[in-house]
Amino acid sequence: MGVSTPEWVKDAVFYQIFPDRFAQSARVPKAGHLQRWGDPPHPHKYQGGDLLGVVEHLDHLVDLGVSAIYFCPVFQSASNHRYHTHDYYRVDPMLGGNEALRVLVDEAHARGLKVVLDGVFNHSSRGFFQFNDILENGEHSAYLDWFHVHGFPLHPYAGPEIPSGYEAWWGNRALPKFNTRTQAVREFLWGVAEHWIRFGIDGWRLDVPNEIDDDEFWQEFRRRVKNINPEAYIVGEIWENASRWLAGDQFDAVMNYLFTRPVLGFFGARTLNEGVISGTGYGQVPALGAEAFARQVTEILTLYPHEITLAQLNLLGSHDTPRFRTAAGGDESAFRLATLFQMTYPGAPCIYYGDEVGMQGGRDPDCRRAFPWHDPSSWNVDTLEYTRKLARVRRNRRVLSRGSFEVLHARGDLLAYARSLEGERAVVLINAGLEAASFAVAGLEPGRYREVLSGAPLELRAGEALPVAARTGLLLLRE
Amino acid sequence: MGVSTPEWVKDAVFYQIFPDRFAQSARVPKAGHLQRWGDPPHPHKYQGGDLLGVVEHLDHLVDLGVSAIYFCPVFQSASNHRYHTHDYYRVDPMLGGNEALRVLVDEAHARGLKVVLDGVFNHSSRGFFQFNDILENGEHSAYLDWFHVHGFPLHPYAGPEIPSGYEAWWGNRALPKFNTRTQAVREFLWGVAEHWIRFGIDGWRLDVPNEIDDDEFWQEFRRRVKNINPEAYIVGEIWENASRWLAGDQFDAVMNYLFTRPVLGFFGARTLNEGVISGTGYGQVPALGAEAFARQVTEILTLYPHEITLAQLNLLGSHDTPRFRTAAGGDESAFRLATLFQMTYPGAPCIYYGDEVGMQGGRDPDCRRAFPWHDPSSWNVDTLEYTRKLARVRRNRRVLSRGSFEVLHARGDLLAYARSLEGERAVVLINAGLEAASFAVAGLEPGRYREVLSGAPLELRAGEALPVAARTGLLLLRE
Repeated sequence: MGVSTPEWVKDAVFYQIFPDRFAQSARVPKAGHLQRWGDPPHPHKYQGGDLLGVVEHLDHLVDLGVSAIYFCPVFQSASNHRYHTHDYYRVDPMLGGNEALRVLVDEAHARGLKVVLDGVFNHSSRGFFQFNDILENGEHSAYLDWFHVHGFPLHPYAGPEIPSGYEAWWGNRALPKFNTRTQAVREFLWGVAEHWIRFGIDGWRLDVPNEIDDDEFWQEFRRRVKNINPEAYIVGEIWENASRWLAGDQFDAVMNYLFTRPVLGFFGARTLNEGVISGTGYGQVPALGAEAFARQVTEILTLYPHEITLAQLNLLGSHDTPRFRTAAGGDESAFRLATLFQMTYPGAPCIYYGDEVGMQGGRDPDCRRAFPWHDPSSWNVDTLEYTRKLARVRRNRRVLSRGSFEVLHARGDLLAYARSLEGERAVVLINAGLEAASFAVAGLEPGRYREVLSGAPLELRAGEALPVAARTGLLLLRE
Repeated sequence: MGVSTPEWVKDAVFYQIFPDRFAQSARVPKAGHLQRWGDPPHPHKYQGGDLLGVVEHLDHLVDLGVSAIYFCPVFQSASNHRYHTHDYYRVDPMLGGNEALRVLVDEAHARGLKVVLDGVFNHSSRGFFQFNDILENGEHSAYLDWFHVHGFPLHPYAGPEIPSGYEAWWGNRALPKFNTRTQAVREFLWGVAEHWIRFGIDGWRLDVPNEIDDDEFWQEFRRRVKNINPEAYIVGEIWENASRWLAGDQFDAVMNYLFTRPVLGFFGARTLNEGVISGTGYGQVPALGAEAFARQVTEILTLYPHEITLAQLNLLGSHDTPRFRTAAGGDESAFRLATLFQMTYPGAPCIYYGDEVGMQGGRDPDCRRAFPWHDPSSWNVDTLEYTRKLARVRRNRRVLSRGSFEVLHARGDLLAYARSLEGERAVVLINAGLEAASFAVAGLEPGRYREVLSGAPLELRAGEALPVAARTGLLLLRE
């Protein structure tokens, strides 16, 4: 079977939104007991973002150069992150309900933006209907075979000293694990996936799909989704090598944390905040020099079929990690260099909401602060402009999305690489060091270039060395 | 303000269906762990009735003379009776979901049948979304003001020795009581009522509406429902005098248990099964003679405005009571005489599903047995034919629904009464005794009559006495 992934993903720039924290619309009625917008995130409190708020800021995304949005869960859930699904067929009322998603998808599509939703199919919440039926009816429940019950009575809300009586995600009794061996459960979950693809979404990000240890489940999932929309994107949350799922018959791609770690290790090498990194999904992030970094990011490109590599979701951080900038000790230049690399590397870049204006944030839930629409003075407008330039050039120049990747130079703090496609050529020069440096790279073919970040034209002569200021990079596109 | 109630109700014959137990369709997928159809009802088990099953038996109802169906709750609920509402906007998946209700309402309407649903607005279930949010997020919940929380932590599933921490219906922690003082809750509940009226249902039966001690709530409820469909029926479950709600600004009618009790006391006088009656909503049901019975059923007609009296839901039993026949000690004649009275008395008769084929059943949950489609040999076909004749004549002769009610004779076991309307006249003669008796009633005007149950013509001459066999009655319609 040939491996095929959606064409649109390969040229896409994603933007990840945590729905409770991106934007609020006055048109969506809110519950009475919310945190104030912008307060330090609380594990159990809502700040009241909604989907019409997203609609009202779509122009920000278009202006930024984004072409697809990946949403953390939007379905009805009694948690501010909404991973505790209460109802898979209903968008959370505080987000504006199904009507708001209708408006969002339509308005996004009208602007050429794709919409990918987060599918949490491994587990439900304690309030999910069929699990609630077990809580209410005990051993007499009609839905006993929907979950893994070890014995009655269950203790859904007891403290850790009392076993829950059922299987749950990582033992967290708030998240009872589906019994995906039961045909009705399989049909239910596949049906959910089909329903929202028919509704018009453009793909599924799959939460902890490796916990459903069942290739056939995901193969059928893929068949059903692609049968409705062959260009739907299926991207799994797998933090390690994902070869099992990336042979072409399950996912199109994964969240590329294998990319994130070396990027953080190289660009943040001098400033890594180990306190904020340790204990997250990253595990240990060693500081890297250019040699090791180049080796790792080259190797990543060989892990999976090429079609899949081009569709990988390359992220600098997510709702599950400290923000890149914070993990890099607050160093703005680390974030910018990482963005330059991300936007010029194979695979679809994904901007975590607010990174583009310089938001900070430590480990969950601190990485989920409210977007500072209320405080524009806090925005880093230089970073915003920097990100915008790179996102736009990424969208416009296929050499950056589809071209080959070749490291030209990698030593100490200096990295140079080229992208090539059908006569097009881009060269990236990065000086991650604290002092200015010059590149005299063999692979820098002479000719007329434009440097994207400054907009300046550049006539490159044979043997010439190119100066790059400390902690900056150049993106050269051959004219 | 003039009191106005729906015209169609005054001429209606209702049929009450307990959805899990009326009929199953092979077209609705079922959960894995069901009781067998027809097994003794278990408090926590489902037998798997569904709404397409009802559709498949609508012809039975039409044939019976029924013109309206009142359904016990159909919304998603983790209980076989579905009073523990999990989702007010979704028909239970085991009933076939919203799609099945769509088919049901359309098919019913196509046959001239109205559909009334049960609205459980005083309380929700523990799995209901906003209550679940409180369970999940505790004092940080966005929906704290949706319920009456006394203090944290809550103990939703603890035993009776530990207080729940919140207000619930009659202290039953499975049924947390809404805080209907909160505007968002009011809007939510009114919105549910409006939604399903817009969907096409013909009215709401309101579960324990007296527990929402708030006239303005129900006044607004009425305004909103009637604004969408002025002929929608609003009938409350009030077991005692309901004057407060029946002044024209709240309900159209109530479930007329004030009617049920004397009917049981008179027709079942000799055989009352006090063991099965005691401890039910009926309280004490004293045996009555014809004099007391006539006084009581005459007085009932004066309790409320006439428009309301004509729209009352006159029932012989429900899902909350033993079946009439069982309460009357199994005496078939008691049920038949009660049906004769019910069908010839002002107010809309309501047949509890299966009573027409002679089903028995004691207190809840025994009164909720599965309809014996699987065992036609168990049907009492005489009672079915008897009920059918009376239901049909009730529908066809306005004198029976709209006419005045006048007791002609009431002594010992003998009761006679007349209904009159614009020259039409019906006379009912009932001999509740164990021996044949003769009626020589002054009010029996001479003339040509037809006796409905036998179909026989009858020439009544002045001063003539009419014999009535033991435990039977005659329904005379003047030709």
